Amino acid sequence: MGRHRVVILGGGFGGLYTAKALRRAAVEVTLVDKRNFHLFQPLLYQVATGSLSPGEIASPLRSVLSGQRNTRVLLGEAVDLDPRRKVLILADHGADGEIPYDTLVVATGARDAWFGHDEWAQHAAPLKTIEEAVRIRHRILYAFEAAEREQDPEKRRQWLTFIVVGAGATGVELAGALGEIANDTLKHDFRSIDPKQARILLLDGASRVLPPYPEDLSRKAEASLIRVGVRPYAGVRVVGIDESGVNVEHGDGRTEHLAARTVIWAAGVRASAFGEILARRAGAALERGGRVVVGPDLSLPGYPEIFVIGDLAHTTDRQGRPLPGVAQVAMQQGSYVARLIRRKTGGRRTGGGAPNKPFRYRDRGDLAVIGRAAAVARIGGFHLSGFLAWLIWLFVHLMYLVEFSNRLLVFIHWGFLYLTFNRGARLITGAEGPEEL
Amino acid sequence: MGRHRVVILGGGFGGLYTAKALRRAAVEVTLVDKRNFHLFQPLLYQVATGSLSPGEIASPLRSVLSGQRNTRVLLGEAVDLDPRRKVLILADHGADGEIPYDTLVVATGARDAWFGHDEWAQHAAPLKTIEEAVRIRHRILYAFEAAEREQDPEKRRQWLTFIVVGAGATGVELAGALGEIANDTLKHDFRSIDPKQARILLLDGASRVLPPYPEDLSRKAEASLIRVGVRPYAGVRVVGIDESGVNVEHGDGRTEHLAARTVIWAAGVRASAFGEILARRAGAALERGGRVVVGPDLSLPGYPEIFVIGDLAHTTDRQGRPLPGVAQVAMQQGSYVARLIRRKTGGRRTGGGAPNKPFRYRDRGDLAVIGRAAAVARIGGFHLSGFLAWLIWLFVHLMYLVEFSNRLLVFIHWGFLYLTFNRGARLITGAEGPEEL
Repeated sequence: MGRHRVVILGGGFGGLYTAKALRRAAVEVTLVDKRNFHLFQPLLYQVATGSLSPGEIASPLRSVLSGQRNTRVLLGEAVDLDPRRKVLILADHGADGEIPYDTLVVATGARDAWFGHDEWAQHAAPLKTIEEAVRIRHRILYAFEAAEREQDPEKRRQWLTFIVVGAGATGVELAGALGEIANDTLKHDFRSIDPKQARILLLDGASRVLPPYPEDLSRKAEASLIRVGVRPYAGVRVVGIDESGVNVEHGDGRTEHLAARTVIWAAGVRASAFGEILARRAGAALERGGRVVVGPDLSLPGYPEIFVIGDLAHTTDRQGRPLPGVAQVAMQQGSYVARLIRRKTGGRRTGGGAPNKPFRYRDRGDLAVIGRAAAVARIGGFHLSGFLAWLIWLFVHLMYLVEFSNRLLVFIHWGFLYLTFNRGARLITGAEGPEEL
Repeated sequence: MGRHRVVILGGGFGGLYTAKALRRAAVEVTLVDKRNFHLFQPLLYQVATGSLSPGEIASPLRSVLSGQRNTRVLLGEAVDLDPRRKVLILADHGADGEIPYDTLVVATGARDAWFGHDEWAQHAAPLKTIEEAVRIRHRILYAFEAAEREQDPEKRRQWLTFIVVGAGATGVELAGALGEIANDTLKHDFRSIDPKQARILLLDGASRVLPPYPEDLSRKAEASLIRVGVRPYAGVRVVGIDESGVNVEHGDGRTEHLAARTVIWAAGVRASAFGEILARRAGAALERGGRVVVGPDLSLPGYPEIFVIGDLAHTTDRQGRPLPGVAQVAMQQGSYVARLIRRKTGGRRTGGGAPNKPFRYRDRGDLAVIGRAAAVARIGGFHLSGFLAWLIWLFVHLMYLVEFSNRLLVFIHWGFLYLTFNRGARLITGAEGPEEL
């Protein structure tokens, strides 16, 4: 009999950390992803705002895992599953359509959710992939270019209005970076407009920015946002998005039209489509947002050889509150599942034995950065803000970037940005003219 | 009367160097480009082969010129010209359609030429823009991925065959980088295929690679190419390109089908379409490849206030041989035209006076790099090759990169590449699956 075959679906934080933790295990690992790189999503907004290049926050999965002899990487899209025959089925590109497994780890993550308004996708730019980040960069930079050429003051004002929907960490960080672009980066670049006239509106249905954070940190983040020229609009519900802007409803039922040419969507996600395949083929129950309900050891009920981790899994803390869809959770779940697999295949307790110790999330805190040298952080019971929080943010993000070369390059880019406000990656690529979504 | 208005069309080497040389002139400069960045085209093949990121070889025109108070940058596409009213007409994006000029400098460069076979564009990937470089990167990396998944040996062989058409500097440098990718960068990355089995064919109609170079350097370049696994096919004429590969005709009339899934086009250019507008509106004569015939001072015959420079201009050396379409020529022509404009507007000899001293090209030499630490160089009368030529190549390219931050980042990337063979920017972005051209 050959070695135990572990198939990991998805090369995000969950899948990659599972694979890395199986480095020395006596198993055969196959990592399948439809992209050839691991994306460091927490810094995606910096690609969207021209501080970093795509290559700096993405690492080829092959090169990350090339030293790991028990692991192969396959570029492919999983389209089905046969849990009885234990095979994963890939979209056919002429070859190798079925991947047999002894253990399957599903870590396909999340995608955008439009809250039942799929037509908004035509007008609001989401930020989940490298391509979407480059498109947002295009739209932001093109808006300033169009304003420079526009003679009509009202139209110019619409080009210079930017709306970010969703004041979670991504929305807050993106809006903060936009504020810096308008106030510092582009300060001397235009002749007809003053980029400082840009209005950046940050909308959220909750009563404050960064709703999951402690309230004092939300207030500090709000103050930092206002300092870089962002206007937080808390407690408003988005009721419409079209090419002219965003319609919102205030808490008192009053509605308002916010005219803007650039709308960015940072308002929530739902689980990836593979959850539906698990529901159809293996009877998985789906929770709010399409997340798959798993047992305490992250396995699919009735299928102890299938694990679901990361943003696709619905997991809770001891108080029964759902765990957030963040990298920390996915990484810890990946390491946990790898530990279970090592134990099972280590030879000591094959075939049943004691039940698995349940997964426990160790919450290490939250971090969000708002423009230059300002951040808010919750670390265990401590609440930090300002320069110290920013230093911690820098350190943590550099530490978790996957490749050493990327760490160095990002560090240098940030150094330049800090010293000169210059954003090197300010290219408008893709289609010419305004990018029609 | 306002200041003398200089409108520069195109932000490549010619246009940008004209603008920079007018830094302290008492004129109003408007630089118009349809892209918002200056592209350092000599390193485009490094983006295509995953050594560099797009942002590292492109600099936003606005930020390059932001300190230059007499200069504004407009993002726009010139679609027409009225030389009698002296206005340049931009594609209408709702505003500012006509740009009046006192002096117009046209530097719109070159585009791909398919030698009358436009249908080849569907199958062979050209390399003139950032987007095309990223697409070539996609195709190269995807070919290795597809080969890894392919079971049929013949199909696998087709995925692992790469054909570069054109053995000028771009083709030679690209083929050399491809050789390095197959032999070093990807060495440990695959489990089913050995990337060294990749066949890289470099085709050219001339009898040797780098035809404009002295023959001894062509021979040295050929030896270096063979060392990194490239097979130069000199003296073959491409007679067909389709999805199955390339048909060539040898010098003896024998034809051969070269089966390959990846074909890259580096075989020549023709002048940009603005030459045709100059012909229609100002009676410009077009030479071979659509280049505009200009007078000794680079002005359009009959229009002393319109200059044409760079790849769009047909200019010759003292022996009447056409000047090559390289950055050096465009840069020197830009500086020359700026000098004429400074003289005309400097107040000393307004209104006629002595005729302009004709433009003279100072040929500083040629440089091409072939893989790791190997290059060929002609500098004045000296022929160099190997490590020394490579060092000179490094130095010259870093020196001419426009921004200091890019110089540092490219230097670091090259350092990593030299030490580890690792190409960081190995992302397959854009469409998923094989990129259909």
